[in-house]
Amino acid sequence: MLDLDTDLPDRDTLITHLALARSPRVGTVTFRRLIATYGSTAQALAALPEHAARGGMKGYRPVDMAAVEREVAMAADVGAVPLLLDQAGYPERLRQLPDAPMLIWMRGSMPDHDRGATAMVGARNASALGLRMARTLAAELGELGHVVVSGLARGIDTAAHEAALETGTIAVMAGGIDTIYPPQNLDLAERIAAQGALLTEAPPGLAPMAKHFPRRNRIISGLSDSIVLVEAAERSGSLITARMALEQGREVLAVPGHPFDARAAGCNRLIREGAGLVRSASDVVEALAMPSPMGISEEQLVWAPEPPSDGVGDALAALLSPTPVAEDELIRQIDRPAGQVMAALMDMELSGAIARHPGGMITLA
Amino acid sequence: MLDLDTDLPDRDTLITHLALARSPRVGTVTFRRLIATYGSTAQALAALPEHAARGGMKGYRPVDMAAVEREVAMAADVGAVPLLLDQAGYPERLRQLPDAPMLIWMRGSMPDHDRGATAMVGARNASALGLRMARTLAAELGELGHVVVSGLARGIDTAAHEAALETGTIAVMAGGIDTIYPPQNLDLAERIAAQGALLTEAPPGLAPMAKHFPRRNRIISGLSDSIVLVEAAERSGSLITARMALEQGREVLAVPGHPFDARAAGCNRLIREGAGLVRSASDVVEALAMPSPMGISEEQLVWAPEPPSDGVGDALAALLSPTPVAEDELIRQIDRPAGQVMAALMDMELSGAIARHPGGMITLA
Repeated sequence: MLDLDTDLPDRDTLITHLALARSPRVGTVTFRRLIATYGSTAQALAALPEHAARGGMKGYRPVDMAAVEREVAMAADVGAVPLLLDQAGYPERLRQLPDAPMLIWMRGSMPDHDRGATAMVGARNASALGLRMARTLAAELGELGHVVVSGLARGIDTAAHEAALETGTIAVMAGGIDTIYPPQNLDLAERIAAQGALLTEAPPGLAPMAKHFPRRNRIISGLSDSIVLVEAAERSGSLITARMALEQGREVLAVPGHPFDARAAGCNRLIREGAGLVRSASDVVEALAMPSPMGISEEQLVWAPEPPSDGVGDALAALLSPTPVAEDELIRQIDRPAGQVMAALMDMELSGAIARHPGGMITLA
Repeated sequence: MLDLDTDLPDRDTLITHLALARSPRVGTVTFRRLIATYGSTAQALAALPEHAARGGMKGYRPVDMAAVEREVAMAADVGAVPLLLDQAGYPERLRQLPDAPMLIWMRGSMPDHDRGATAMVGARNASALGLRMARTLAAELGELGHVVVSGLARGIDTAAHEAALETGTIAVMAGGIDTIYPPQNLDLAERIAAQGALLTEAPPGLAPMAKHFPRRNRIISGLSDSIVLVEAAERSGSLITARMALEQGREVLAVPGHPFDARAAGCNRLIREGAGLVRSASDVVEALAMPSPMGISEEQLVWAPEPPSDGVGDALAALLSPTPVAEDELIRQIDRPAGQVMAALMDMELSGAIARHPGGMITLA
């Protein structure tokens, strides 16, 4: 649990961390590599233009420091505290993700989730049965000591948060910490901030848009050790979240429904594809007792600094296209040390030559 | 498909086959072993008392021949024809079972089931949703060329048979071929006999009792390559049928339901345990396209004759108890050729010293 007196970063640390995180084209992979290379955010920030130039771009400009100051002030105005990727207090499960948020704004305090954290996702236009199931499951999970993580949306999310308020719940938002959506959940959000945690990686003031949800959803599953789909139609966003959770190595579970009920179609499809079938909280606990088939190794997260190298960028440019290729695949195909390839990729990312996608995929931008 | 002109056994063959099959303590394992040893039912029948004596029983008497004649006459009265285990026209899938019925009485004619035969089982007190699912699924399966096999019971069975009447359905009864149960399905039974097949291993005149159903159910799944549980509560008979089908190496599938619906609890449990989730007939077809994980090898079904051996019976008696032990386990534990152990077990079965149970389990009687 975060100790607000000792674990909060000092202002300078926060400002440079945020500046690096908000600088153009700095994603988590690059952020980590820069910190590993330079040892401090301040030095990494200073080195950005040089890397971008090496990747082929002249005139790279880090973030506007006035914007950084503004973000910090706006967050402070609503009483939000920052959790920094490389600092104490940052949620450990989330930190394991290759694309973990570099910074999180939080209101409230992180509930103790040593006993487990379960994400609950599902339809916004849930049925009465679905809502009842979400409430029952969230309450049962809470009794078993699990924190319930969800997205503050209407329907399943709202039911899950409400039933877990007393025992511990975390709402992950797609917009800014000061921008509650949907508006009818303003009161629920306040209660979550008072009794649990309300958090987001977005800067204050950002209104949530559809395109933000997939990235938000990776935080919901990233904070959790299992994710339960309560009611979800075919081709629903919840299904995408479930697949992403699977890639994160999370235990993916779903509540079944009758095949004639279209609102169960997504859940039933997931179960057919191997997701665990959930009837009650004890099924969630049982699933967690089994070893997870996937997991992200430490090596993917920590790098030693590597000297710049010539020619790797050209070789990479030849291999890359708008079709996503895995970073691992690139490293295999180029006959140079992996660290050199990764360093060159960082330079290319900063210069805007390439873009990174979930699952370690890379495209030519 | 059975050709009634050429495939029906002559009267003598039928009488001796039936006499052997109905003799006390002759099960399928013993029946097959006797035929393999003696080459004909008549000689096997004559040898029964000798084997029983060797197993420790004096005065074994084969079946009363008058009762056999009576059974044949009663079956003929209702137009039933016999299918004999070792003769053409006996369903091939069923023949593969270690405990395949030695004789089946059939009315109607076996629908062509080269494209697949699917057993459908479920609750007698099914919900409207369950009945609709059974009808939809049976009709879809029929359109895909599958025969629908069920048990003529109320509820799911009735709905499945009715929806598959035109395309092909088989009703397996627990009582005699002349004893339709439940009485409200008399008309349905006649239509099945006219358009499909009505069959049973029971002798005519036998009223079905609860204890007959598990044995009947092994024929339902034995005739089929997959079995679909449509609606089944916890601790229902359908669940037992499903487990038995799994032991037979059949593809076991279930239609899910919402966890709040108690009538789906058995289905959901099966799916949790690995049964395929069925939303429509195409899910059944897809499951069949995968290789089945289990199967019964030919070796379990065919034996070469083996000379009688001393001492094996005593060794077996020492190992056996009222707790079931697998035949394989006994063979492993006794340091003698497998054929000798099996021959001794046959003698002990005929003498009443042991009893055989599903899955090759044996107990001291």
